[in-house]
Amino acid sequence: MCQDCGCSANTSTKVLEVQKKVLESNEKEAGHNRETLNRYKILGLNLMSSPGSGKTTLLEKTIELLNGELSIGVIEGDLETDRDAERIRNRGIPVHQITTGQTCHLDAKMIHNAMHHLPLKEIDILFVENVGNLVCPAAYEIGTHTNVVLLSVNEGDDKPAKYPLVFRTAELMVITKTDQAPYSDFNIQGAINDARRINPELKVLMLSAKTGEGMGEWIAFLKKRVQECRS
Amino acid sequence: MCQDCGCSANTSTKVLEVQKKVLESNEKEAGHNRETLNRYKILGLNLMSSPGSGKTTLLEKTIELLNGELSIGVIEGDLETDRDAERIRNRGIPVHQITTGQTCHLDAKMIHNAMHHLPLKEIDILFVENVGNLVCPAAYEIGTHTNVVLLSVNEGDDKPAKYPLVFRTAELMVITKTDQAPYSDFNIQGAINDARRINPELKVLMLSAKTGEGMGEWIAFLKKRVQECRS
Repeated sequence: MCQDCGCSANTSTKVLEVQKKVLESNEKEAGHNRETLNRYKILGLNLMSSPGSGKTTLLEKTIELLNGELSIGVIEGDLETDRDAERIRNRGIPVHQITTGQTCHLDAKMIHNAMHHLPLKEIDILFVENVGNLVCPAAYEIGTHTNVVLLSVNEGDDKPAKYPLVFRTAELMVITKTDQAPYSDFNIQGAINDARRINPELKVLMLSAKTGEGMGEWIAFLKKRVQECRS
Repeated sequence: MCQDCGCSANTSTKVLEVQKKVLESNEKEAGHNRETLNRYKILGLNLMSSPGSGKTTLLEKTIELLNGELSIGVIEGDLETDRDAERIRNRGIPVHQITTGQTCHLDAKMIHNAMHHLPLKEIDILFVENVGNLVCPAAYEIGTHTNVVLLSVNEGDDKPAKYPLVFRTAELMVITKTDQAPYSDFNIQGAINDARRINPELKVLMLSAKTGEGMGEWIAFLKKRVQECRS
């Protein structure tokens, strides 16, 4: 198994021992990150999804709509390139790119290091854009306050049933690219039903960062969570 | 790191040792699988992509177009559910579902076990539909003859640059859902250029399993590879 993905491909005692230690050490580190965020009264969000579900585009539109009302910082996770960080940087937002090489997820230690590169005193919301992967990132706490999973209408409504962990660990599922719904066979209610079977408390929003549809609710969600984090 | 993803999140000596052993043992098992496929003169293809790029839909259309001219067997990999296997089974094709739980990829041992459930004597092509994940599956040989990576136009043209390993290990990149190209900003030539920078020998096909566009070239590719496998 991926020792730290919590998966079960190789279940030798030695592998399981190493895996357990890696996850325990990660959890401890995640706790430190959360303390730091709390100290600075920063809301931390961990954005997870398949590759190409629209995480960076959602961030770009969020920056535009918040228009400085709340201060944003971003940590970008990718195997290679800093293209996503460049897109955020072009909007004048402090951003730090983590390039993981072949690592399939971000972990708490990487976030700790990245936070040193950001002006924490000036930030209200720290978005972490995780590696595009619907499996492994969900197994790693990184110390943010909440997990948000994106699911684009192009990916198919069967994803919550087929990739349950990431939907189980999320507070909110954002169904993205709703402007493309007419050209896809995505069954919105089917996807929501499957996701809530896994996680009955899951909140759901639908939006298109391209057309702006549904973005108001997303911004309202962020503002509410920032208030909760401050109080 | 994911010990068996070859990634580098945790680089303690113990983790690296365990990882090395897991990968070595997997490679040995993959060799056995390839010998078995060769003995039966079966072409083995490992289909990899993000979740929702259209692997199962491509298989369904392939079965329809081959119309029994070549005999197909399928191994389906998913974390949960046997929905994909059910779709293939409904077409009268022998299929075995591997549900991996939280494991982010298929490995050679899983394929070995799955092959015991298929009528190898009657099969010309064995398709393995790997777990939807653009990262981890590429690190695991499973013993098939070739890797095929799917990239849908909805995912964005930046994926080859951002997820290089899976494009480096592939013989063929299939750009899918071309019927949706008018509604996406996908730069086809940009994606191909990036992919060939990583893997200059990479073959490329473009198709829509929905409209049938480009399916002829895919079928021709399969027939040619089956011939090569038999000779």
